[in-house]
Amino acid sequence: MWHKATLEITTRGKGLYDITAQVQAQVTASGVGDGMCFVFVPHTSASLVLNENWDPTARADLESAFERLVPEEQAWFQHTLEGSDDMPAHIRAALTLPSVAIPIDEGRLALGTWQGIYLFEHRRRPHRRRVLVWIWG
Amino acid sequence: MWHKATLEITTRGKGLYDITAQVQAQVTASGVGDGMCFVFVPHTSASLVLNENWDPTARADLESAFERLVPEEQAWFQHTLEGSDDMPAHIRAALTLPSVAIPIDEGRLALGTWQGIYLFEHRRRPHRRRVLVWIWG
Amino acid sequence: MWHKATLEITTRGKGLYDITAQVQAQVTASGVGDGMCFVFVPHTSASLVLNENWDPTARADLESAFERLVPEEQAWFQHTLEGSDDMPAHIRAALTLPSVAIPIDEGRLALGTWQGIYLFEHRRRPHRRRVLVWIWG
Repeated sequence: MWHKATLEITTRGKGLYDITAQVQAQVTASGVGDGMCFVFVPHTSASLVLNENWDPTARADLESAFERLVPEEQAWFQHTLEGSDDMPAHIRAALTLPSVAIPIDEGRLALGTWQGIYLFEHRRRPHRRRVLVWIWG
Repeated sequence: MWHKATLEITTRGKGLYDITAQVQAQVTASGVGDGMCFVFVPHTSASLVLNENWDPTARADLESAFERLVPEEQAWFQHTLEGSDDMPAHIRAALTLPSVAIPIDEGRLALGTWQGIYLFEHRRRPHRRRVLVWIWG
Repeated sequence: MWHKATLEITTRGKGLYDITAQVQAQVTASGVGDGMCFVFVPHTSASLVLNENWDPTARADLESAFERLVPEEQAWFQHTLEGSDDMPAHIRAALTLPSVAIPIDEGRLALGTWQGIYLFEHRRRPHRRRVLVWIWG
């Protein structure tokens, strides 16, 4: 009944990575017509965000916004063992999404025309991230 | 098996619009007793938030909080083609919800007594927004 | 078909309360192998967050981050009737999660190794909070 898949996404440092096509590929593979697609990130320094997918400056500005809203190198951070980008990563992850449910309508993710699914990497060094895509139809 | 509905919400500029009654109407129409109600916004400059529905000043202060947390007219914005309220709209949408799942208990949304579902319009000009309400029982 | 449970969590003031074991206990009680666990908070001054569960300083810093991002005692607050910690509570709740869906894989929540589920209490005084755990398999 469940279609279960795990995407492996290699990130090359901080930023937004468009995973829409890979999630849609799982929806297609599932054969589900009407249903729900659950995307889940089992990490606490990477997260999910839905954002505009047309103008690359929208993506760049969203990344900058989080750098400014949750700056690195705060003197009051206690959790600094794993590097200066680690605690900001947890905070930015808490402000975005670990999990999102997207309706599937006649075999397609019911996203808006300019709406994409992004994995938001919050760490500076490359990481191998898992993204669970579970589909119910 | 799925009850699928699309609400059309006309917004008159920035702010929180209470859509609880319209979502509950779909739950009632679905005939579902126990189930899950998935609400999804296929836009990147409007979003969802659950908030206090009793005192209008709580709503006003929440709107103000986002104006202050993510101010307009930042010199570092690159994505300015669609107006000064566009990039803040994407950031505010990323900080709130594109999607929310609310349990249905004996035919009613299991919201708290003072908890309402709001469409959060982040653009200044009126828009026609779609809100998908998908119900599984 | 649905396994429905309501956790009663007594909070002793502001902070993050780890409820992972109590949610997993419901997953086990449900007997579900593959499925989805929906966690929902019917309150507007408490919320959910998934966060690192290993180093207590990560939890402390996340709490501090919200105190700084959304400070109390803002002169522009109008909604002050219920105390100086009430409006910040609503804003912090809006920035985190009222609802989260976590995949269940072979009877276990598919959380990351260092990822826990936290109830985030935003009020200063102790509260009795309800957390709905609904499981579909």
